[in-house]
Amino acid sequence: MYYIGIDLGGTNIAAGLVDEEGRIVLKDSVPTLKGRSYEAIVKDMAMLVQKIINDAGVDIKEIKSIGIGCPGVMDSSEGVVVFANNLNFRYVPLRAEMQKYFSLPVFIDNDANVAAFAESVAGAAKGARYSIAITLGTGVGGGIIIDGKVYSGFKSAGAELGHMVIMVDGEQCTCGRKGCWEAYASATALIRQTIQAAKENPDSLINKLVDGDMSRIDAKTAFDAAKQGDETGKKVVEKYIGYIAEGLTNIMNIFSPEVVVIGGGVCKEGEYLLKPLREKVAASVYSPDVLKPDIRVAQMGNDAGIVGAAMLGRDA
Amino acid sequence: MYYIGIDLGGTNIAAGLVDEEGRIVLKDSVPTLKGRSYEAIVKDMAMLVQKIINDAGVDIKEIKSIGIGCPGVMDSSEGVVVFANNLNFRYVPLRAEMQKYFSLPVFIDNDANVAAFAESVAGAAKGARYSIAITLGTGVGGGIIIDGKVYSGFKSAGAELGHMVIMVDGEQCTCGRKGCWEAYASATALIRQTIQAAKENPDSLINKLVDGDMSRIDAKTAFDAAKQGDETGKKVVEKYIGYIAEGLTNIMNIFSPEVVVIGGGVCKEGEYLLKPLREKVAASVYSPDVLKPDIRVAQMGNDAGIVGAAMLGRDA
Repeated sequence: MYYIGIDLGGTNIAAGLVDEEGRIVLKDSVPTLKGRSYEAIVKDMAMLVQKIINDAGVDIKEIKSIGIGCPGVMDSSEGVVVFANNLNFRYVPLRAEMQKYFSLPVFIDNDANVAAFAESVAGAAKGARYSIAITLGTGVGGGIIIDGKVYSGFKSAGAELGHMVIMVDGEQCTCGRKGCWEAYASATALIRQTIQAAKENPDSLINKLVDGDMSRIDAKTAFDAAKQGDETGKKVVEKYIGYIAEGLTNIMNIFSPEVVVIGGGVCKEGEYLLKPLREKVAASVYSPDVLKPDIRVAQMGNDAGIVGAAMLGRDA
Repeated sequence: MYYIGIDLGGTNIAAGLVDEEGRIVLKDSVPTLKGRSYEAIVKDMAMLVQKIINDAGVDIKEIKSIGIGCPGVMDSSEGVVVFANNLNFRYVPLRAEMQKYFSLPVFIDNDANVAAFAESVAGAAKGARYSIAITLGTGVGGGIIIDGKVYSGFKSAGAELGHMVIMVDGEQCTCGRKGCWEAYASATALIRQTIQAAKENPDSLINKLVDGDMSRIDAKTAFDAAKQGDETGKKVVEKYIGYIAEGLTNIMNIFSPEVVVIGGGVCKEGEYLLKPLREKVAASVYSPDVLKPDIRVAQMGNDAGIVGAAMLGRDA
């Protein structure tokens, strides 16, 4: 049997035909053209799926289910997108709309959960019963896998790991609270921290790397400076990794996962990021005799959305 | 069928015969006399269980399993107490030792998980699929129920909800980290906060209530002062409830539980505590349209340990 996975993003709709092992047989995409009605977007999704099925030469009877990953707040059990900011979706009956085109089971979940599931089925957490996936990007996304299934709690409103306050009355978060992990550990936060350090230390290499143009500072700049021995760069990186470690230690103490998978652009730093991170977490967990942090870089890349969404139907 | 539940504490060993519904048929206890070898303690546990079975007049064939709740770090799957500070236990094979006396399945779990399970089976969270139980006492204990079962992660090292940092570089916690929720939301923390406020505000009612003797301040003092209109007392209580709310909002965003059960002495304050707590959490969760905090006071009291431990074997 095969599965269809759809990664519905603000820019593109990517979809693929996926086999039992989580391998993509064939994939394709169309622009989302957001701002349109959900009916128009779902129609394009359905046409894309039909094209993939035709191109792959499989029979519709060989398709077990359709899975859709979407950014925002989902009610997975009802198949409804409660809220998806970048698609202007509010209470959109995504499952019901999709089933107008295909008489197949349709599963929906949010993009962070779907990415975590992809890593669990076919990526860096393959074989682990309990795993957590964190994405350090514009925000901090989280996905929880328990007993090989996505956990998101009542009405799928959980797994918002980025919105765990680690600093009461701290930095303002986009969610309205102050001091969320996301406000300290996201790439956005790293850039803010780098700019602040550059302003306070005008002689640092950070300033030279961007020719004094703060708007050119990105999530790589502090790491680049640190690797060249710059003290300010090193301090920014150490403090940033410390913030990641605080949230990750919380997650270890709460979930005791076998594997933690970290994704997002910051992971390109590889062991330069992960080695001190593992050390900090290992030194801080509540049960150090038992809890040995196994922190790995995400493997699924851009395919995570398609594969994770497709696999939602495998054991359902 | 019946179940035996044992609540192994630092002072007493309490045990009971429990029915399928989580009702205690007969219970009894003996002193733990801690400091003895684990073999001696388990022998007394076994004798207590045998006495209960005899007194109740049930046949051993009617007993399905024995469950043991114990404070500390357990490896539930192996039946081993990894570490229990107040019993001087380290890598104690509790299941194997108990099975020298009874040819029955033996389950072990830590006291906070067991208490959460008792609330889920027969207490304040009865009927909820996802629930969290928090105990605000000397520390902050946590138990997680997912799909009606205790969740504690790999090697049972999770569910340490009190050891979630909410204030990076904040108050020193007993676990070695700084800024844990426990260091702000426990009864111990409330007493510390009350003493500090009393010192800074010598004219407050708090000082009068204890005749200026700071050592008489307990977890009730600030609440008593606040209820009589004392400004300092009100400020302490509001800030303390704010700290509880920060951790609880994190837990809502992570787990999206249907019910949160709060236990411990502080809960005697009832709605005076719970009403502002619900309001603060409701105003802060990530998905307020979906997540409506249902926060309730624990119902199982001192029986939680026996009932929760007994029920570990019910669906196993």
